[in-house]
Amino acid sequence: MRLHAVILAGGRGERFWPLSRRSRPKQFLPLLDDRPMLAHTLARIRGLMDPGDVWIITAKDLKREAESIAPGVPNAQVIGEPVGKNTAPAIALAAWWIKEAGSDSVLAVLPSDHRIEPAERFRDELARAGRIALERGAIVLFGIPPTRPETGYGYIESGDPIEPGSPFHRVKGFREKPDHRAAARYLSQGRFLWNAGMFVFPPGAMLEEIHAHQPDIAALLADMPGPPRGGTEDALRRFYGAAPSISIDYAIMEHSGKTLVARAGFSWDDLGSWDAIAPPESRDSLGNATRGSALLHDCKNVIAFAQGGLVAGLGVEDLVIVRTPDVTLVCRSGRAQEVRAIVEQLKARKDLDGYL
Amino acid sequence: MRLHAVILAGGRGERFWPLSRRSRPKQFLPLLDDRPMLAHTLARIRGLMDPGDVWIITAKDLKREAESIAPGVPNAQVIGEPVGKNTAPAIALAAWWIKEAGSDSVLAVLPSDHRIEPAERFRDELARAGRIALERGAIVLFGIPPTRPETGYGYIESGDPIEPGSPFHRVKGFREKPDHRAAARYLSQGRFLWNAGMFVFPPGAMLEEIHAHQPDIAALLADMPGPPRGGTEDALRRFYGAAPSISIDYAIMEHSGKTLVARAGFSWDDLGSWDAIAPPESRDSLGNATRGSALLHDCKNVIAFAQGGLVAGLGVEDLVIVRTPDVTLVCRSGRAQEVRAIVEQLKARKDLDGYL
Repeated sequence: MRLHAVILAGGRGERFWPLSRRSRPKQFLPLLDDRPMLAHTLARIRGLMDPGDVWIITAKDLKREAESIAPGVPNAQVIGEPVGKNTAPAIALAAWWIKEAGSDSVLAVLPSDHRIEPAERFRDELARAGRIALERGAIVLFGIPPTRPETGYGYIESGDPIEPGSPFHRVKGFREKPDHRAAARYLSQGRFLWNAGMFVFPPGAMLEEIHAHQPDIAALLADMPGPPRGGTEDALRRFYGAAPSISIDYAIMEHSGKTLVARAGFSWDDLGSWDAIAPPESRDSLGNATRGSALLHDCKNVIAFAQGGLVAGLGVEDLVIVRTPDVTLVCRSGRAQEVRAIVEQLKARKDLDGYL
Repeated sequence: MRLHAVILAGGRGERFWPLSRRSRPKQFLPLLDDRPMLAHTLARIRGLMDPGDVWIITAKDLKREAESIAPGVPNAQVIGEPVGKNTAPAIALAAWWIKEAGSDSVLAVLPSDHRIEPAERFRDELARAGRIALERGAIVLFGIPPTRPETGYGYIESGDPIEPGSPFHRVKGFREKPDHRAAARYLSQGRFLWNAGMFVFPPGAMLEEIHAHQPDIAALLADMPGPPRGGTEDALRRFYGAAPSISIDYAIMEHSGKTLVARAGFSWDDLGSWDAIAPPESRDSLGNATRGSALLHDCKNVIAFAQGGLVAGLGVEDLVIVRTPDVTLVCRSGRAQEVRAIVEQLKARKDLDGYL
């Protein structure tokens, strides 16, 4: 088996404003330590596959930055999308190119902005999922056993295991982000898993599904030249210009009979907002967590993130405090997902537009 | 009557950290608007006296900055103390020099870091107090009728008015900062007034009291040359080197039979901490007040002070948020006076010493 990775690094989230900016989305931010999330993603698969078998899909204007973070990855395999078309076209294209690498190839699609621990266990499970995918011509998704009634994630309903005791299950269906009641039910029933957006497949299996369910994309692939070694910009522009904007879940997963789901044994978090960057185990005895220069006096449950300067807290509780070189955000704990409301207000304020 | 002012601008407070720093104490900060407090103090007396009759007492290393804020004041009258010796020696020295200006001279001692409004009423009352001081050879203090049981101020106990209905009263005594119970009693009894640290006197009256109660200072004065026109640095060094460190209240006011107290009709605040910079009338309907670039979303009772950058608040209440170019302070409302605790901790942290 030869494992390839396609790392999705095209996101444009505003959820980590003020650290994330137009030119600096989440995957390029040093949220976990001093390295950007994308660097963590690359480090996590080191040893499991050759850097020459890694592909990174990002936006055209982010290609340079992605390349600088991924020194071993051939620059021609860092694809700068001229326009974002969600995940299905990019994954189809990667499968189209990688199928030429040989019949023992397996492709792992990996988001670039999640926290996954421990890395060794992740690698073991990824390799095991790759072997199952290759053996069965399957698309193997990772499902995370939920630990709380999370309403922010999609769920995968798992069916019977492929063999008694196997962590690989058939897929009964997909569920959109549920309301709290449904999420609580999913949590108690045990067969619902968080959809982590990670999956493994032989390129041929995915291409068959694209032919079957996304003929428009399949037709566009037929016009594409082989794996890029530079000079594919025109072809990319044509492909992305014509491709529909659709997620791989909608385009393929929900229609495919080839899917399996692996119950993951590693811990996973999609780091959806500032609230998530300091999980309980990273807090001190007062519930505080700091990054950079911070001094908290008589504070409780405070996340202080300082980049370029000092954050001082005095007698405060349940806050997320983020200081960047030009902005300070002070946010009630649990409300960090509303940072977008601030960003929207900034867009409407010409005088503050520079802080976007 | 010829009014002179002696403005006390030597303070070294840490109460407005992180805006106040070693080299930038409160009187030089733009706390009320874009002008430093000292500039407000000078503007407040404009028209009432000639800038050539204004003296500023500050620390030696702050003399330049004080001069730049006080363009009409002769540089020789901006006294840079080689070492701080509290207020009594400085006031004695000013009286010593100003007594030569003529027998109709009256000297007003004014702190440089208080908020006083309206300025016109203040000028009227200052002039009236000056006339009474000159007529009676008195030291006339300003007492502020208290509006709350404040434990952070000293109090003056007023006696009978000098004439029926006069705002000028005899002084029965001085009270240190009281506990809450005593402060509540003072508030209800009506004859206790906040000691605003402002007073007016003919230089001769003050010098008599210094002879009577502070013979050491009086002896040092006898060795001083006349009013400085440059080149008095050696004399200043000798004077300050030998003078006792003592406040004018302890040194003179509490012993003098010449004191009167004027019940002030202007509003006054000594701006003791960040909590004080946004009084109720300056708040919006949600109790928020902002200075500089700030964006508050679903916030209540938040003071946001931004210098060099943006402060964004999201869903928070009862906070003071101060952003300077290198520090962000987030403080629970009502606890800003504890900022000193942060400063003390910084002093103990070599790695954060640069933020002092």
